[in-house]
Amino acid sequence: MFAARTTIRLAAAALAWLAAGAACAAPAKAAQELPPKASLADVIKASKPSDWRPLDPENTIYMDLPTGRVVIELAPGFAPRTAANIRALVREKYFDDLFIIRSQDGFVVQWGDPDEEKPKPFKAAKTIQAEFTAPMASVGGFTRLKDGDVYAPQVGHVNGFPVARDPSSGRAWLAHCPAMVGVARDTGADTGNGSQLYVVTGHAPRHLDRNITVVGRVVSGMPLLSVQPRGLGAAGFYEKPEQRMPLRLVRMAADVPEAERSRFEVMRTDSATYQAAVEAQRNRGGPWAKFATGKIDLCNAPIPVREQK
Amino acid sequence: MFAARTTIRLAAAALAWLAAGAACAAPAKAAQELPPKASLADVIKASKPSDWRPLDPENTIYMDLPTGRVVIELAPGFAPRTAANIRALVREKYFDDLFIIRSQDGFVVQWGDPDEEKPKPFKAAKTIQAEFTAPMASVGGFTRLKDGDVYAPQVGHVNGFPVARDPSSGRAWLAHCPAMVGVARDTGADTGNGSQLYVVTGHAPRHLDRNITVVGRVVSGMPLLSVQPRGLGAAGFYEKPEQRMPLRLVRMAADVPEAERSRFEVMRTDSATYQAAVEAQRNRGGPWAKFATGKIDLCNAPIPVREQK
Repeated sequence: MFAARTTIRLAAAALAWLAAGAACAAPAKAAQELPPKASLADVIKASKPSDWRPLDPENTIYMDLPTGRVVIELAPGFAPRTAANIRALVREKYFDDLFIIRSQDGFVVQWGDPDEEKPKPFKAAKTIQAEFTAPMASVGGFTRLKDGDVYAPQVGHVNGFPVARDPSSGRAWLAHCPAMVGVARDTGADTGNGSQLYVVTGHAPRHLDRNITVVGRVVSGMPLLSVQPRGLGAAGFYEKPEQRMPLRLVRMAADVPEAERSRFEVMRTDSATYQAAVEAQRNRGGPWAKFATGKIDLCNAPIPVREQK
Repeated sequence: MFAARTTIRLAAAALAWLAAGAACAAPAKAAQELPPKASLADVIKASKPSDWRPLDPENTIYMDLPTGRVVIELAPGFAPRTAANIRALVREKYFDDLFIIRSQDGFVVQWGDPDEEKPKPFKAAKTIQAEFTAPMASVGGFTRLKDGDVYAPQVGHVNGFPVARDPSSGRAWLAHCPAMVGVARDTGADTGNGSQLYVVTGHAPRHLDRNITVVGRVVSGMPLLSVQPRGLGAAGFYEKPEQRMPLRLVRMAADVPEAERSRFEVMRTDSATYQAAVEAQRNRGGPWAKFATGKIDLCNAPIPVREQK
């Protein structure tokens, strides 16, 4: 489920190393060696059940593609109106048999209705007042990352989502990290409604922060979206209908029979264990790592997810 | 060639907007509007021939996959020994008919010899002294980015490559931005030789900076690499041989007949035009954009490439 993005090893060496465990790897030269240190996998292994929270079925969307299930967690604390409209769209089965319509390399994959001439009708709201930012006081407890940020005065996490905020304005917002889900819109700020959504597949386009409503995160299934062939039309839109992958079935988890639900848990980002998880990524231990910067970028801070079978 | 990563528009609106030109889009509410501003496309359009430099055929690798050509520019200023060894490997045709062996979502795609039992022999050096960093004074002129960085004291560009540096140590290094190419290694620092290479396909894993030799950048063909199916083995290695895409033919551009060469140019990152290109991305103008942070992350700073047909 959660793949730590850590080292670049030779193929054969990686397999041997993973089989043997890092502690058994050949020692490097002493002068280049960092002290051993708990890895993210170690931290996850040592975590307690109380370090994790389940997904709320009323905030969880299953998007069942022909290739597998994508699971999206909505963040109504940051975008209550938009989250409610997306719930309404899902419940009127609006997304069923619509398509992935765009894949722009290093940027986003987008889905919705490709038909400009005869768009699929829906009963949910057509426009929603923009939710680009939210009051800091209303979004829940903020666990600040001490490492700083290029784009915002403060960054950290709220309830398992990457967040930036500006105390001078009193506003907080979901950051455009990979796997974050946002709401495509037209030129006007209030023209998004949730019927066309995108997910970040490349390096975090943080310039979009505060320019668009971000509404959730893909907690499982990113590889199904990120490998979509890149569109050859402007901005990565597909020009030929046959390039579009259908969204077979899109449902709120709450509307799916218990037996068919996925059982994901997200590590509580306000826990001491989460601090240890971030620290494991911030400074890698030896023997592979030779240098530790002691810093981590918001979008490199892991947000572990696991599935209870 | 160069797709600006800018806005998230609705499908129909995007097409209409792109057809009509941004200046003709419907005006947004005055209170939310940013002043119009040159876009990256505008800057590129207004550039002079002297703002661009051609790729040096002795530093350019063509990797011809069954799906198309990947073009890699080596950076011998940062890794002279490694670049020379990769040149030697290419010239003894070592890479021909080897494979893409790893694709880890949000991280890297890696290629080389998957065979642990009977690895393909080569005459080039088996180990090379690590080139994780280089003396600041030896790598060429540095154009500093004023925006700051989470990982390093200074960031900017040298000759079309993203670079970080630390004046206190006098060292500079290529930054692990998307499309950067590095050298897989075993536990020891000096165990890389260039026979297994990787390219960054996800959010910049900057924790790898100063831990591994970075040797170049993919200047064309990233979509061919980034859509490779994710490997299901540990760290994204492919477990089944049939999942591996062959590297059909890998050549130095200098060894390819003139008529078969690609003619790429990279914008000179020490030019005034490049400053304008970065500024266009740093603060977007209206009418789509509603908020400009006035900042840009090193790995979001564009390095424009174009092909002379």
